[in-house]
Amino acid sequence: MRVRNKPWAQPLIDANTELITETPDQFAGKWQGRFEQSQPIHVEIGTGKGQFIVGMAKAHPEINFVGVEIQKSVAALALKLALNENLPNLQLVAGAGESIDTYFNAGEVSRVYLNFSDPWPKTRHEKRRLTYKAFLNSYQNILPADGIIELKTDNQGFFEYSLMSLNNFGLVFDHVWLDLHNSEENENNVETEYEQKFSAKGQPIYKVKAHFRG
Amino acid sequence: MRVRNKPWAQPLIDANTELITETPDQFAGKWQGRFEQSQPIHVEIGTGKGQFIVGMAKAHPEINFVGVEIQKSVAALALKLALNENLPNLQLVAGAGESIDTYFNAGEVSRVYLNFSDPWPKTRHEKRRLTYKAFLNSYQNILPADGIIELKTDNQGFFEYSLMSLNNFGLVFDHVWLDLHNSEENENNVETEYEQKFSAKGQPIYKVKAHFRG
Repeated sequence: MRVRNKPWAQPLIDANTELITETPDQFAGKWQGRFEQSQPIHVEIGTGKGQFIVGMAKAHPEINFVGVEIQKSVAALALKLALNENLPNLQLVAGAGESIDTYFNAGEVSRVYLNFSDPWPKTRHEKRRLTYKAFLNSYQNILPADGIIELKTDNQGFFEYSLMSLNNFGLVFDHVWLDLHNSEENENNVETEYEQKFSAKGQPIYKVKAHFRG
Repeated sequence: MRVRNKPWAQPLIDANTELITETPDQFAGKWQGRFEQSQPIHVEIGTGKGQFIVGMAKAHPEINFVGVEIQKSVAALALKLALNENLPNLQLVAGAGESIDTYFNAGEVSRVYLNFSDPWPKTRHEKRRLTYKAFLNSYQNILPADGIIELKTDNQGFFEYSLMSLNNFGLVFDHVWLDLHNSEENENNVETEYEQKFSAKGQPIYKVKAHFRG
């Protein structure tokens, strides 16, 4: 998602450094210190306006969540949403997904979420897709040996690519859903803004849950 | 597909034992002898009325094809179709898919096709699905180390299951198609009877091509 630059974004981020950081590298190995309780950390890469990560943090107080968003103005929108909720188990990062393994130490994160990532449909942009092997490698670097990736998308081409890329990388599929919203799994599904908008148009939502072979 | 028993099936099969066999075990290791030329062998498990395997044999004279169908009356319909065409690179088997590794020697087959297999949707019937691990094991037994499986289906649940089962077995995905008929791959796609009927209703056709890790 592209949004116009918001002049209020930087001041809001600067005023809330207990909840959002632009220098996540300094917390590598120390993330538990930013939460009220030490408990498993789940990271969403490409958090957008934050509906998913905030919804997850509310639904799962037993998990600590970190939402990473590269666009500062978008991260600031997620920050606004988070400020309304005051959740002790939620942190935000304004930063790029490709640097994720400098944000966290090995094994510090137990699950990675990729929701409605930019599909980068052109072949020459393959390396930008968040399921390209270099990204998978960086997720592996921050997860335990059998760490989990959960991916949702409405983009057929990106889902085809991601199934191939995860499989080729050696990840083990726990489950594949070709129409998430008409499955039993949907009972516990927390929707992103984008998901809400597009599934309302009858577009099937795809999901895969997979783990590294360990 | 279930069809009524056809009284003419057995006599027709008996009259054409150069083209169809009910005792495929006797040809294990000797299949090339049943074809005009020695060339790679591709096997379809669940050949139905034979439209796919006959179409493939016509389109690919450089490959030897074997269509296996468990229901004798259905195999006899495929036989009728094959008799019309008189193809030197096509053989049929009236027999069960689960015995496939008694029909062929190790490495005798280079590719296995599963087209619109019975989805057996109930969990208690999982072991009957042609992508259940025991079946994958039998395909592995007749293929070379890096042998290929190609699967097409319109059944969402069966495709989800098959992606998981192939992945969990360690197969490497070469490609996944979530809407085959609207992809470039469709240019060379040979349709089954069933595929023709159901895709005309707007049902997406799923396909995966994968190979054993070797």
